[in-house]
Order: sequence, then structure tokens, then C-alpha cells
Amino acid sequence: MNAAQTQPLPIGVFDSGVGGLTVLKALREKLPREDLVYLGDTARLPYGTKSPTSISRYACQATNHLRQQGIKLLVVACNTASAVALDVLREQMAPLPVIGVVEPGATAAVAAVSGGVHLVLATEATVRLGAYARAIAERDSTARVDELACEMLVSLAEEGWTDGDIATAIVRRYLGMLDGKGGEPDCVILGCTHFPILRDAIAACLDAKTRIVDSASTTADAASALLDELGLGNEQAGTGSLTLLATDGARRFASVGGRFLGEDLDAGDITLVDL
Amino acid sequence: MNAAQTQPLPIGVFDSGVGGLTVLKALREKLPREDLVYLGDTARLPYGTKSPTSISRYACQATNHLRQQGIKLLVVACNTASAVALDVLREQMAPLPVIGVVEPGATAAVAAVSGGVHLVLATEATVRLGAYARAIAERDSTARVDELACEMLVSLAEEGWTDGDIATAIVRRYLGMLDGKGGEPDCVILGCTHFPILRDAIAACLDAKTRIVDSASTTADAASALLDELGLGNEQAGTGSLTLLATDGARRFASVGGRFLGEDLDAGDITLVDL
Repeated sequence: MNAAQTQPLPIGVFDSGVGGLTVLKALREKLPREDLVYLGDTARLPYGTKSPTSISRYACQATNHLRQQGIKLLVVACNTASAVALDVLREQMAPLPVIGVVEPGATAAVAAVSGGVHLVLATEATVRLGAYARAIAERDSTARVDELACEMLVSLAEEGWTDGDIATAIVRRYLGMLDGKGGEPDCVILGCTHFPILRDAIAACLDAKTRIVDSASTTADAASALLDELGLGNEQAGTGSLTLLATDGARRFASVGGRFLGEDLDAGDITLVDL
Repeated sequence: MNAAQTQPLPIGVFDSGVGGLTVLKALREKLPREDLVYLGDTARLPYGTKSPTSISRYACQATNHLRQQGIKLLVVACNTASAVALDVLREQMAPLPVIGVVEPGATAAVAAVSGGVHLVLATEATVRLGAYARAIAERDSTARVDELACEMLVSLAEEGWTDGDIATAIVRRYLGMLDGKGGEPDCVILGCTHFPILRDAIAACLDAKTRIVDSASTTADAASALLDELGLGNEQAGTGSLTLLATDGARRFASVGGRFLGEDLDAGDITLVDL
């Protein structure tokens, strides 16, 4: 960590693709002076449908690239990688601090609703691993957690069809799969980084009093708190620069990623790296 | 090709994932005595969003595995790989005969409708490469070809939501993108192997006289004709055995793939291979 004391190192943000740009967006809003470097492993997306072994291997290769170029904190902005590979990454990256998106999401959900029914909307892999259910149970043993795999919401977000009849019909169909399995959830956790841009469509299908927790803003809050705790925060902050790396498809990264970052991107803004 | 003369070699079928199982299904129906070995490169799917360089590299690695275990014909049951990598594969696999799905689809479309308007529904990569437009123009210089990227139809098919309001709303929205760009198509080409199982939903959104060409059945017809032409057909046929290989996620291959093959699969039916 010596380098961090002599020059302002960036925060590294890793995702399997472009969805993690919602986390990057939240980090920029929360920590506008921090330099950020984002790596999307677009050559191997989506992680959500792959095996735990492959996900861990890919995540280690990708984050090692970020570490080698110098970062002060690694944010795993990918629910699947956070669910599957966070322990492995923490071990391999030590002493670099590493945070994922599952733990901040679970902490925020339990803070929002105590002892109620939580519904996690996520990819198949995240649901299969049950990481949110475990993380919530560790924080509130009286909570009940339902998890729902919603793969179609990923492509819906990437296509940019974030509002209108199709979005709400798809959300309603997924939520309808819970019928007969219990009551209306008290808290819905957007357990995939793609889903924050579908927040309005999801909210439109829920009771008005249902709380919605998204892993992007909660992870940005957790990153900010951790930097403060480690003394790596504001005083060593940079100029708010943004570096975007991808392992494939700069043009698609720009056209689709712009939706998640909330600003127009050009293929020339993306640097391709070979892992 | 000597081995083919002493023992019945299988037909090798390659796809980036499970969509090519619609081609495998059509091959089984057309050639019930042929032995078939299918390799889905599920560890690296989807090819549709990846760069041409990556697609070619992955396709060569995967099909080399099939060649090494002995096949008499390679069917590239993936529109993206057919559009991007067919020439490379033919060169690398020679003298093994190789057919893709684009050329049979284009031939069938031109046979169905002469001099009309063709609409290709496909993935982004297939559209970007314009392989169908070229293949149709080579066969009918008076034809007009529109191409439409429909990524959401891939996840719709994988989710199994092949009929009902959501399927037709999504198809209608894609077709609506053509408004003002010309008249109703005379022929719609299902230019992604996932789309044959959405055929009814697509047909419901088209004029009744619009012809629909799917690359699965047209490729099976082309494979049968080529085997006859090369003298590798029926007389050397096997027992109709089926071997399913995948590079990752046997459980998901079985649950999703069963929809495309049209029969229930169990994870134990799939053998994982490391390329």
C-alpha cells in the first residue's frame, strides 16, 4: 500500500460486462474526486450462466489486471462474481481491500426492513448460490428471503427498453411466479447490477410501501465508508478521472454501457485489454 | 477421410450454446440413422455480442475438438459463427466438409420468394456482418434484404416464454422498428438458431402470406444433400446415437437445451469438455 501514500491511486471496479457501470455511476456521484478505473470482462460475459469454477477463474484473471496497474480498493461490481468468488478474490488480492455488492445490499436491506420478507431479483447463478439469503440471514435471523432468477431483465436493460408495457409485463410475469409462495415482499433487492435502470418498471409492479434496495448505491456508500476507515479517502483523492477497460467489443460496450453509466459513450472512450 | 470408409463416423454439430439444438433436432428428423455429436461452447456464449476475432478463435478451438474425435461432416449450427468464421473453419478443417446455417437459409429464402423483400431476424453480430444480405444478393440480385437485430428474442427463447402476450409484444416491437423503412416483408428468415421455437409467435405478427424460412430445417436438408453428394450418407449410417458435449454448465444446458431439442434432458446426459 506504499504507492497509495505517494500518489493518488484509483479505485478499481470490476464487472463481467457493462451492468457494473451502474455501480461506477453511483461511485462517481458519491465520491466525485476519486479516480476510477473500470474493467468489464465483455469477452466472457455473462458470468450469470457459467459455473462457479469458471466464474472464479475469470474474476481472478480480470482483477489481477487491475491490481497490476495499481488500485487502492477493488470493488467487485458484479453480483455473480461477488456471490461466487469474493472470498477467493480477497485472499488473492490481499492486502488490497476488496468489497463486493452482495454484503452492502444485504446490510441495506436489513436496515430498511427488520424481520420482514425480502425478495431478491437476480441472475440464475446469483440465485443458485443463495448468497443474498445467507448474507441477510447472518444480519437478521428473523428475516425471510425469497430469490427469483430474472434473466430476461438483463437483456431488457441492455436493449434499453426500461419503461413501457413490455418492461412491466415481464416484471409482472416474474413476480407472478411467487404467487402462492407467500405474501407481498416488504423489501425488494435489485441483486443484479443491470436492474437499477429498471427500478421504475419494477416499482410500478410493487405495492407502494415496498422498499427497494439497489446494490449500486449501497455499494458506493460502503466503498466510501471503507476508504474513510482505512484513511484512503478524500485527502488522497484524485481528479475524478475515469478509465474504461473492456476485454472485447468496444463499440457495443459504448452503445449499451452508456445506458448504465447514464451518459453517452463513444467506442474511442474504451480501451481493450487482453487478459 | 479413410476412417469414414471403415466405420460410421458421426456428424459433428457445433454451436456457441444450446440454440443449435434446433439444428440438431432437424438433423435427427431428416437423418434418423446418422450418429450425431453436438458441442455447445457454453463457457463462452453468447458469440453474438463478441468481436469477429474472438468468434473465429473460439469457433476454431471448439470445432478442432470435434475433428479430433472423428467426424465426417461439420455443421456450424450457429449463425454468428457461420457469418464470421465459415471461411476460416473450412480452411482449417480441410478436407473435412463444413456447412454453416447462413448459406442454406439464403438458398431457401430465394427459392421461397424471388425478387421480393427479405427480412432477416438475427443477433447483433450476424446483422453487423451482413452475411445474409450478401448470401441472398449472390443468389438473387433483384432481392431486397432488411436485417434486424433482436437480442431479446434470444433470452425469450431461453426462458421458454415462446407464446403469449409477452412474446408477441416483443416481436411486434422489433418489427415496428421497420416502420417507414419499406413494406411488409415477403419472406422472414429466422437467422438465429434460437428463433425456430418462436416461429408461432413471429408468424402471429406477420401477414399470413409472408413466408418464414428457418435455418434449422434448411441446414438439415443441406447436410443431407451434401452427404449424398459425397457418398457419406445412408449406406454408412450409424445407429442414430446422440452425444452432447458442452464447455460449461451441464445443468443449465439440460434445462434450457431441452426446449430447443424438444425433449427432456438431464445434466447427466451432457459431458463437459475443456477446450
